[in-house]
Amino acid sequence: MQKRDILDCHSRIKPYIHRTPVLTSRLINEKIGAEVYFKCENFQRAGAYKIRGATNAILQLSEEQRAKGVVTHSSGNFAQAVALAATNLGISAHIVMPTSAPKVKKVGVEQYKGIIYECEPTLEARQSLADKIAQKTGATFLHPSNDLNVILGQGTAALELLENYPNLDYIFCPVGGGGLIAGSAVVAHYFGTDCEVIGGEPFEADDAYRSLKSGKIEGNKTVNTIADGLRTTLGDNNFPIIKEHVSKIVRVEEDEIISAMHLVWERMKIIIEPSSAVTVAALIRDATENPKAYKEKKVGIIISGGNVDLQNLPF
Amino acid sequence: MQKRDILDCHSRIKPYIHRTPVLTSRLINEKIGAEVYFKCENFQRAGAYKIRGATNAILQLSEEQRAKGVVTHSSGNFAQAVALAATNLGISAHIVMPTSAPKVKKVGVEQYKGIIYECEPTLEARQSLADKIAQKTGATFLHPSNDLNVILGQGTAALELLENYPNLDYIFCPVGGGGLIAGSAVVAHYFGTDCEVIGGEPFEADDAYRSLKSGKIEGNKTVNTIADGLRTTLGDNNFPIIKEHVSKIVRVEEDEIISAMHLVWERMKIIIEPSSAVTVAALIRDATENPKAYKEKKVGIIISGGNVDLQNLPF
Repeated sequence: MQKRDILDCHSRIKPYIHRTPVLTSRLINEKIGAEVYFKCENFQRAGAYKIRGATNAILQLSEEQRAKGVVTHSSGNFAQAVALAATNLGISAHIVMPTSAPKVKKVGVEQYKGIIYECEPTLEARQSLADKIAQKTGATFLHPSNDLNVILGQGTAALELLENYPNLDYIFCPVGGGGLIAGSAVVAHYFGTDCEVIGGEPFEADDAYRSLKSGKIEGNKTVNTIADGLRTTLGDNNFPIIKEHVSKIVRVEEDEIISAMHLVWERMKIIIEPSSAVTVAALIRDATENPKAYKEKKVGIIISGGNVDLQNLPF
Repeated sequence: MQKRDILDCHSRIKPYIHRTPVLTSRLINEKIGAEVYFKCENFQRAGAYKIRGATNAILQLSEEQRAKGVVTHSSGNFAQAVALAATNLGISAHIVMPTSAPKVKKVGVEQYKGIIYECEPTLEARQSLADKIAQKTGATFLHPSNDLNVILGQGTAALELLENYPNLDYIFCPVGGGGLIAGSAVVAHYFGTDCEVIGGEPFEADDAYRSLKSGKIEGNKTVNTIADGLRTTLGDNNFPIIKEHVSKIVRVEEDEIISAMHLVWERMKIIIEPSSAVTVAALIRDATENPKAYKEKKVGIIISGGNVDLQNLPF
């Protein structure tokens, strides 16, 4: 990926996405001892950054491919994003969702006119059903995090953040399948000035942390985390980027996630989903353990999404 | 109140307040059939617009008055605002709060270093305790909604909204004690171009609606509404302004308030309190009853606050 590719991608998807606002909080700045800039992708269309990558990937398909539609599997936000992006571009979207996906995310997919197929909540079941649909319909499979066009699109949130605040010292991202952090890391490399990218991950699904330690892609034995968007594992396209450009992954406990979520809801008055709270919790933990590293620094944080089931809150 | 007073007030309080963002939602625009601009005072310092009026009123006190502090009574947001404004300006704040005030608002007052006094949840008990404290300490009483300096300050939210969107056809405000809507109405009169100001009020506390009908200030027999900020009645300073400059008051049922609150939380990903949801509900109701009046119009809406007890939600 080159600098030019990122800028081209951003121009290509701009008509289909929101330029989301960047918010700050005095209280959180005081708590961290740094200036923290929240890039609010929870205000993005379909409630998460995923529309960026989905739109870019669809726009790179040929006319012939588009005519046959797209297929993907996702626990939620990528599903909604593909459904909305496909509808925006006048093509059909087949969406495989695990039975465990939050109801609000399924309703979202339906509203955006995606065709839902349910499967068991395992990566194998998801992939196998998506493959079957691709074979039957001729639809192009879009991977939620391991597709280079998707990764490029996801990186544009960090690009906009750096356009607003070019001197960020750090950018924090959640790590699920690795698409967002890989895209952000490439963007920080080309457009930041000594900007480190740090991942946030639940201890309960710390595959990325262990993958960076071992040097190869590791799986998750358990994914018993409230952060439903971060239960997936890295892929062979994003892992090399992450290895090269991500400085570290900070792991957090479930109670830290819930308390970070509560803090942001209560003090910033914005709705963020648990996967986004993981990143806030990671920043709080790292700034507590290494206060000197954050003193008077500028920290960007990608608030990845705001799709929560309001009838089923953890507090 | 003259044009100049409003601009002077805005310059005076600017260093102590946030310029809050204006958000929009495609879904809500489609639902209303108009362009709706949400002035997000839920992102204001202390979580509500009230800091504007409190700061203006305190800045208008003499040095001698400031030395003796201020006293007020409020069910919540004005209490927090006075506590914070007083702390910002280095003076003490005595805050009378009804025992029924949400816990989160009491905690806010404590965090901003206000001195809390509890009383029975009646306007009489609140006023009588505040009077006693004023006598004892020499503190100046600040009325949450019937003080002209407070009214002027509250109007600056609408001023900023009109600076961003000068051609608004309507501005919707909640109506509690009448300070916000009176300030907004004066601002719309001087700075709008044919901009109508419309109030939103719960049927359960519709004193302003009845006051406009009868031509004199009416009380509330019941205040059995979830919108805890709107249980108070109009005052002799704001009522004449409201009579002159507010076109109408739209009343809404409790279930409309809750469903508007849910809509905004779920679709806009921002936390608004029930009193703010009243205004959204009023706009939805009026646009449903009079769709022609809203067709392709520009509607501003003052999202007054975001202080909710997250442990005690209506959905």
